[in-house]
Amino acid sequence: MSDYVKIFLDESEMPRQWYNIQADLPTPLPPPVDKQGNPIGPDALAPVFPMNLIEQEVSTERWIDIPEPIMEALTLWRPSPLCRARQLEKKLDTPAIILYKNEGVSPPGSHKPNTAVAQAYYNREFGIKRLVTETGAGQWGSALAMGCRIMGLECKVYMVRISFDQKPFRKIMMQVWGAECVPSPSENTRTGRAILAETPDTPGSLGIAISEAIEEAVTDDKTRYALGSVLNHVLLHQSIIGLEAQKQLEKINLYPDVVIGCAGGGSNFAGLAFPFVRDKIHGRDVRILAVEPTACPTLTRAPYAYDSGDVAMMTPLLAMYTLGHGFVPAPVHAGGLRYHGMAPLVSHVQREGLSEALALDQVECYQAAMQWAHTEGFIPAPETSHAIAAVIREANQAREEGKQRVILFNWSGHGLMDLSGYDNFLNGHLTDYHLPDDELQRSTAVLDNLPKPPPRG
Amino acid sequence: MSDYVKIFLDESEMPRQWYNIQADLPTPLPPPVDKQGNPIGPDALAPVFPMNLIEQEVSTERWIDIPEPIMEALTLWRPSPLCRARQLEKKLDTPAIILYKNEGVSPPGSHKPNTAVAQAYYNREFGIKRLVTETGAGQWGSALAMGCRIMGLECKVYMVRISFDQKPFRKIMMQVWGAECVPSPSENTRTGRAILAETPDTPGSLGIAISEAIEEAVTDDKTRYALGSVLNHVLLHQSIIGLEAQKQLEKINLYPDVVIGCAGGGSNFAGLAFPFVRDKIHGRDVRILAVEPTACPTLTRAPYAYDSGDVAMMTPLLAMYTLGHGFVPAPVHAGGLRYHGMAPLVSHVQREGLSEALALDQVECYQAAMQWAHTEGFIPAPETSHAIAAVIREANQAREEGKQRVILFNWSGHGLMDLSGYDNFLNGHLTDYHLPDDELQRSTAVLDNLPKPPPRG
Repeated sequence: MSDYVKIFLDESEMPRQWYNIQADLPTPLPPPVDKQGNPIGPDALAPVFPMNLIEQEVSTERWIDIPEPIMEALTLWRPSPLCRARQLEKKLDTPAIILYKNEGVSPPGSHKPNTAVAQAYYNREFGIKRLVTETGAGQWGSALAMGCRIMGLECKVYMVRISFDQKPFRKIMMQVWGAECVPSPSENTRTGRAILAETPDTPGSLGIAISEAIEEAVTDDKTRYALGSVLNHVLLHQSIIGLEAQKQLEKINLYPDVVIGCAGGGSNFAGLAFPFVRDKIHGRDVRILAVEPTACPTLTRAPYAYDSGDVAMMTPLLAMYTLGHGFVPAPVHAGGLRYHGMAPLVSHVQREGLSEALALDQVECYQAAMQWAHTEGFIPAPETSHAIAAVIREANQAREEGKQRVILFNWSGHGLMDLSGYDNFLNGHLTDYHLPDDELQRSTAVLDNLPKPPPRG
Repeated sequence: MSDYVKIFLDESEMPRQWYNIQADLPTPLPPPVDKQGNPIGPDALAPVFPMNLIEQEVSTERWIDIPEPIMEALTLWRPSPLCRARQLEKKLDTPAIILYKNEGVSPPGSHKPNTAVAQAYYNREFGIKRLVTETGAGQWGSALAMGCRIMGLECKVYMVRISFDQKPFRKIMMQVWGAECVPSPSENTRTGRAILAETPDTPGSLGIAISEAIEEAVTDDKTRYALGSVLNHVLLHQSIIGLEAQKQLEKINLYPDVVIGCAGGGSNFAGLAFPFVRDKIHGRDVRILAVEPTACPTLTRAPYAYDSGDVAMMTPLLAMYTLGHGFVPAPVHAGGLRYHGMAPLVSHVQREGLSEALALDQVECYQAAMQWAHTEGFIPAPETSHAIAAVIREANQAREEGKQRVILFNWSGHGLMDLSGYDNFLNGHLTDYHLPDDELQRSTAVLDNLPKPPPRG
């Protein structure tokens, strides 16, 4: 048993249904509300999303069938291998077993295509011809570009300006798959123009880019918006990661003591973790750990509140941990973790005490990423390096305690498109960013004028 | 059977020995010779390579054990999946079955690490502390950087200047793994300085970079040179690709009608093809097809001759198809195919009539790559696109003939580090390069003054 490094699944063993944690939550998820605090119904979302995805968004069915055309698209790169980081274990001299789900094997190099192909499919089935979206580091934009190409839809991507500048090749990647990519804020939308007028040199943010994408989507009946994280249906599509991992773990008769993922909007974390959260709800002893940057400490320092998903407040209000919809995070390289809020389901699970959270500095994360590259070979994405840094802490603790510990984490993507961050790190140009208390207070002040979620329990 | 998309091997099923085609050749490979035509012995190579690799270079043993530390390193990314390109088949409406070995799953994204970890290991065992090499597109340089890091050696890479400029992130990748990377020609060596004095704006070539690397290697007793292709021991290490593929094909009871690989120095082609060439030698009906660029048509237009592997004639003379050691290919994006010669073993197999060769324009290859990305999702390296273009020709021919045909090819690497070529293609800036006859005559004139290989048969 100690000899395995990779556990594969055959396609015939792939999960045929997604797992919906809403069926197992101890208390129900607070509903989306409007600015007056009234729950909003599915119809209010219809200009933004197709009704078949809205139905998934509000579903409380535990298992949802994966349509055959989505299965076919997923098998272009899935099932992804479950790997053991034996060389890192040796280097750390730890009794811990470090297992990871390698989501870097997809064409754009991350977990994002799992939901991209699904969203493109459901939009196509609903008669939609074109999707508009935003992207931070570029992982989501390139994933949706590919998903749309495979399902035969057009695609436009608003890319957060700092990432657009730092990662020029992401744009080319999207263009290879036929998508249009513009930096955000842009002159294309009312929101973008207003922000550029006020702060022409803004690095942009996911919140701004979302506003621009939604604004463009709602103006055309054959166009809809697609979000790469945060929402329930996105997390649902990512559950295939954890479901595959559970099947793979069964093959080697192991169960994790701790399940770890980095968390920006929350989808890669939830995708791996929620099937294990389900086990925990049903009595299993397992720790669930979300890791975020100190520059954007949503789960660790933000209030739980109703807030909008975007800066222009075009989305309904969602109950979640949030730094305020106007928050612009410091320009850390983990662009995918620079989001002011956190998935309502991830927030809810955290609030229910089913998960823990940890905020880490980017320098520690790059050190961890280097240690990974020097032992396991693969160069991780800066987002993924947050999970790796937490894994190394857990493995070191296991050594200090002299106890075995099975650590499972989501290797959410490779860093081959993010090498400028490594360049900065190697040249000593990277600094840590701790969000100052007064900035946190300022950015969350907007929440005072919004409806409040129900108290816990 | 028609339902599979990926065939995995467990680690326990991985080949434990490399395959050496020298044991099965109908006629022996002409030996390396000096400038007077005298066969040179192993000792003459000792300043360049460690003796354990020189022994592999001249070995005629059919099977050579893979040492355990190399197996351990290989399993960081191996066994690589055998995949079926079902979506491309559909798009082409072909009865052909298109299978490919996905060598893009390695940390730097190509087949090159298969020999990099082996060469680093054997050098370490021989007491060497540092390896110097050259790289074209950057695939080999980054692979050796990783291999050296894993085996604990220092590494320096001379990178062909045009690729160094076109692919800045390759340099960072090498630095992440701890290697030093300089553009070639450089001021570091006598060879480099002489060339810069004569042609300051040269795009460089693999031949020049090899000269610089060897020049640096032979000056220090603890430093050796490592070559990423061409030589027998390199092709030996790559045989694991074809050996895995054969095991995977057995699982689905298929045997290829044609085996295809792109060929620059020849190692990815040989790695997949030679185990099938062995079958062919023993009577099996299988076509073997090498694909090269029209800008560097070694197998299709060059003479079979004794020539040096590098521009400064620091290597022994090798019997091979060669455009002349001074040949500087047009700056096509497939940097890994810009080599004046061809592996002696690949040349010999071709001369024996055991393989065919095809030269393709880069525009057709980029079109093929786009078709691949739009159906199979993955973005191929420009080198790999040559194999894909040939695969599409074969698949179209099968459709025209209305006959099934099993096509197996080596998907030698992904193109995520080579997106500037796609940018040029999408913007219509790419042109074809046909080597003019008079340039071919000029560049091969140097061969007249060198010893001649024995006539065929």
